[in-house]
Amino acid sequence: MENKMERIRLKSLQDLVVTPQEAASWIQDGMTLGLSGFTRAGDAKAVPHALVDRTRNIDGFKVNVFTGASLGFETDEKLAEAGIVNKRLPFQVDRTMRGKINEGDLLFVDQHLSHTAEVVRQGVLPKIDFAIVEALAITEDGMIIPTTSVGNSSIFVEHAKNVIVEINTAQPDFEGMHDIYDIGMYGERVPVQMTKPSDRLGTVGIPVDPAKIKGIVFNHHLDSPSPNEGPDAETETMAANLLDFLRNEVREGRLTNELAPLQAGIGSQANAVLYGLLDSEFENLEVYSEVLQDAMFDLIDAGKVNFASCASITISEEKMKTVFENPEPYKDKIVLRPQEISNLPEVIRRMGLIAINTALEFDIYGNVNSTHVTGTKMMNGIGGSGDFARNSRIAIFVTKSVAKGGDISSVVPFVSHVDHTEHDVDVLVTEHGYADLRGLAPRERAPKIIQNCAHPMYREQLMEYFNEACERGGQTPHILEKAFSWHTRLNETGTMLEPELVR
Amino acid sequence: MENKMERIRLKSLQDLVVTPQEAASWIQDGMTLGLSGFTRAGDAKAVPHALVDRTRNIDGFKVNVFTGASLGFETDEKLAEAGIVNKRLPFQVDRTMRGKINEGDLLFVDQHLSHTAEVVRQGVLPKIDFAIVEALAITEDGMIIPTTSVGNSSIFVEHAKNVIVEINTAQPDFEGMHDIYDIGMYGERVPVQMTKPSDRLGTVGIPVDPAKIKGIVFNHHLDSPSPNEGPDAETETMAANLLDFLRNEVREGRLTNELAPLQAGIGSQANAVLYGLLDSEFENLEVYSEVLQDAMFDLIDAGKVNFASCASITISEEKMKTVFENPEPYKDKIVLRPQEISNLPEVIRRMGLIAINTALEFDIYGNVNSTHVTGTKMMNGIGGSGDFARNSRIAIFVTKSVAKGGDISSVVPFVSHVDHTEHDVDVLVTEHGYADLRGLAPRERAPKIIQNCAHPMYREQLMEYFNEACERGGQTPHILEKAFSWHTRLNETGTMLEPELVR
Ligand SMILES: CC(C)(COP(=O)(O)OP(=O)(O)OC[C@H]1O[C@@H](n2cnc3c(N)ncnc32)[C@H](O)[C@@H]1OP(=O)(O)O)[C@@H](O)C(=O)NCCC(=O)NCCS
Ligand SMILES: CC(C)(COP(=O)(O)OP(=O)(O)OC[C@H]1O[C@@H](n2cnc3c(N)ncnc32)[C@H](O)[C@@H]1OP(=O)(O)O)[C@@H](O)C(=O)NCCC(=O)NCCS
Repeated sequence: MENKMERIRLKSLQDLVVTPQEAASWIQDGMTLGLSGFTRAGDAKAVPHALVDRTRNIDGFKVNVFTGASLGFETDEKLAEAGIVNKRLPFQVDRTMRGKINEGDLLFVDQHLSHTAEVVRQGVLPKIDFAIVEALAITEDGMIIPTTSVGNSSIFVEHAKNVIVEINTAQPDFEGMHDIYDIGMYGERVPVQMTKPSDRLGTVGIPVDPAKIKGIVFNHHLDSPSPNEGPDAETETMAANLLDFLRNEVREGRLTNELAPLQAGIGSQANAVLYGLLDSEFENLEVYSEVLQDAMFDLIDAGKVNFASCASITISEEKMKTVFENPEPYKDKIVLRPQEISNLPEVIRRMGLIAINTALEFDIYGNVNSTHVTGTKMMNGIGGSGDFARNSRIAIFVTKSVAKGGDISSVVPFVSHVDHTEHDVDVLVTEHGYADLRGLAPRERAPKIIQNCAHPMYREQLMEYFNEACERGGQTPHILEKAFSWHTRLNETGTMLEPELVR
Repeated sequence: MENKMERIRLKSLQDLVVTPQEAASWIQDGMTLGLSGFTRAGDAKAVPHALVDRTRNIDGFKVNVFTGASLGFETDEKLAEAGIVNKRLPFQVDRTMRGKINEGDLLFVDQHLSHTAEVVRQGVLPKIDFAIVEALAITEDGMIIPTTSVGNSSIFVEHAKNVIVEINTAQPDFEGMHDIYDIGMYGERVPVQMTKPSDRLGTVGIPVDPAKIKGIVFNHHLDSPSPNEGPDAETETMAANLLDFLRNEVREGRLTNELAPLQAGIGSQANAVLYGLLDSEFENLEVYSEVLQDAMFDLIDAGKVNFASCASITISEEKMKTVFENPEPYKDKIVLRPQEISNLPEVIRRMGLIAINTALEFDIYGNVNSTHVTGTKMMNGIGGSGDFARNSRIAIFVTKSVAKGGDISSVVPFVSHVDHTEHDVDVLVTEHGYADLRGLAPRERAPKIIQNCAHPMYREQLMEYFNEACERGGQTPHILEKAFSWHTRLNETGTMLEPELVR
């Protein structure tokens, strides 16, 4: 069996090995933690749990928890249950934590994923007391080799007062697949010299001042797998509609069959939509995304995708068996980067990405809500969707046209929360079709969105709203006193359908 | 007197001189025009007016009018009155045109100013039949030298089928002050090699294939001056509040007295706020903005601003007298660029701008409406405010706390239109104070915005809404059925004040 200590190749650090419990004992009330972890991958697993065990009964004990994105391993659940989180940012997906956020028990700052590094660097947020990052190894020259995600780990390590490294001996051998680069402080920045997803900018590990490493713990747990959600009939139709749009772009001479570097957001819908590319004519694809889900590996295996850049790899238990056990075939096809780089406007706009993200709801003018159920309750967070949508060549949002068995229309008169404004949304896709909004004025958008994307049972109701609003005039016609009536009707009657339409 | 023909230094083009009327006769129904002009500066003045004269009585005659931003010289007014515009983009400020837009007589596409070039290049919009651009001269090697703005002129010239040049002999001698650069097609782009506002990237004129020039007309009219709106008592207090915020950043070690490259939006308020810098301790300032207004020239004259980059210069009649008549002192202190470059996310984020733009209204969670009065009626357009706010180091929005003598509160429960989401708004400033929202969760933002920024007469009413909303819960508490009640009350009673508060 492997000697764990060999993972600490900088020998002078081998004395720093402690138990997770000891490391957790250093964390004091009021401190700020910067944890590794992005969409449940590569998250620090040992120390946060030890911290919860130690402090759950200490009255009033609170820490700030900053991460890359969501954590796995029930860490957010445990943190939330223990009630020890003061402020959490920039993203989470946990049901229990979501509940606490929405009850107002926990402060959640919903940030563009590329922005967290900026505020950490500027010193706008409280200084990070402990960066706690999962690693495969620490190299001879003192670099921390991340595991299945990079996320914000490199910026946390650079700006934290102290660093705790969790060496995870269960994670796959991804060494060499990371590319760590820091754009640096304002005033000293130079152009990011990247023109294609496979370009490398930095080092294979996170440079760290060894004096900042306060402890090293060992851990042997795989990432929490993502549910293996393949396409269903509706997402298959959504995929087909998206491909129709792309084919039209090829016909118009704006794209070729190699498309443009692709980004696909988190969630079951975006993943399912990617499966549609498998049996298509599109080929030699490149990907510049945040998270690689199952579908991406099938596309790589099928020879459809030549190269994929990401900030994390989040796959199902089944996929882990093939990819994690034999990562070799992927080593020259995938690179993992800090999320500031995977989501950098500069690079996204330069490369001209096709960005595919999921909406909770959109309105008849093309504004998108990705975060707040009925305008108030946080689902997950905006994640990277804004980084990509605003700066991409084509910003596509997908969603099923209805939710909760039809009681909720995903197409509404006025979105109850705006994450992406009409200025940033190019194409909307549901299982009923797509609406290409580019170059259209609001009054042109509405009928197209309603006819092409809304569920037939809601179309008439939507057109009625639009027609009545047009009588009042305006660039973006609305009846303000009815704008949210669909959401309030849902609260009151259990459906957005107007009473006379409910059978 | 100067021989006008000497302005056409490429002699072979001298035969192309025609009257504005003749040039206008080439423009057919259904065509798309790309006009120079940005915030009333450097706009094509002769041919558009001749076109209006020719076509105002032709039934059904319509053209699409694309520009840099707003036009001066009453051109938008005349175009709108004549009813010959099908689609207008990306920005306008004219009262008559605004009326037609809001009546639905004219399609207006409200675009981020850095995005127009992208959609022109991609061929998403109808192909431009005629680019009509104002120029100082055409050089020996066939470059068009722009006048007081660059705007979208270079991209229009490059992608138009035909070009008409309006040589304006009244405009100031700005030759050499322009820097024309095209980021090129997707797939071939390289990093934009700019790290400070004074960096030069391209040529002093717009390269053009001489064969595309179909006609040249002469013109001798100055730009429409901007109203000389100095600060009033309220904008002076707003400026003082903004300086307080900046001073605090210096105290916290996040900025020095040299600040960071500044951007300031259009409008009387942003201009007035800049005057506050004149008597401050801040110095050696650099500016990377869209439009330079009067205040900027005072700052340059006072030695406060060392260098300013822009896409246009829009000043009052009085300022024109000094600046236009003797531009020499400004030639090494100012550069005019295409708006795609002045507003490029890549450069804005790299340089870490402090961006100051104006809001019409903002809500208790920090969402900003810059465009739609009461959610429906277009004022001007989003302009570059989104390009800057999303990508800057500090995104500041200023507005007076009330409008229309107090009947309208600029701080509302829920903005009636969202141009800038809470994710993109860092600091709000009114005459009552500033609210620094960075790193705050929505529930922390609301009390701060209400206490620091709202007008005292609206504070109680706002806190009542917030408290009632909190009882319902949520990350962003709201009472959806009351969210727009302030706007509907205004429509019904003429004031946003609750009846019991109206005396
Ligand atoms: C929007 C988002 C929540 C969709 O996730 P998904 O897994 O594809 O979508 P699902 O269809 O499973 O929907 C998730 C839940 O929202 C509910 N929902 C969907 N539309 C809804 C609507 N309009 N109103 C209320 N609830 C809705 C679904 O019913 C489902 O509820 P359940 O968990 O109780 O079953 C997810 O993509 C997200 O968080 N996006 C924002 C971040 C982002 O885009 N990142 C991209 C870059 S990483
Ligand atoms: C927001 C904007 C209209 C403010 O312009 P300004 O000249 O500074 O502001 P003013 O105080 O003169 O307000 C303009 C009008 O809006 C009205 N107004 C202001 N706040 C209002 C509100 N909340 N509701 C309704 N009307 C309002 C004013 O009363 C005034 O009306 P009037 O023309 O009838 O007198 C202007 O800055 C703009 O168009 N911004 C969007 C584009 C942009 O930011 N570009 C920046 C990069 S260039």
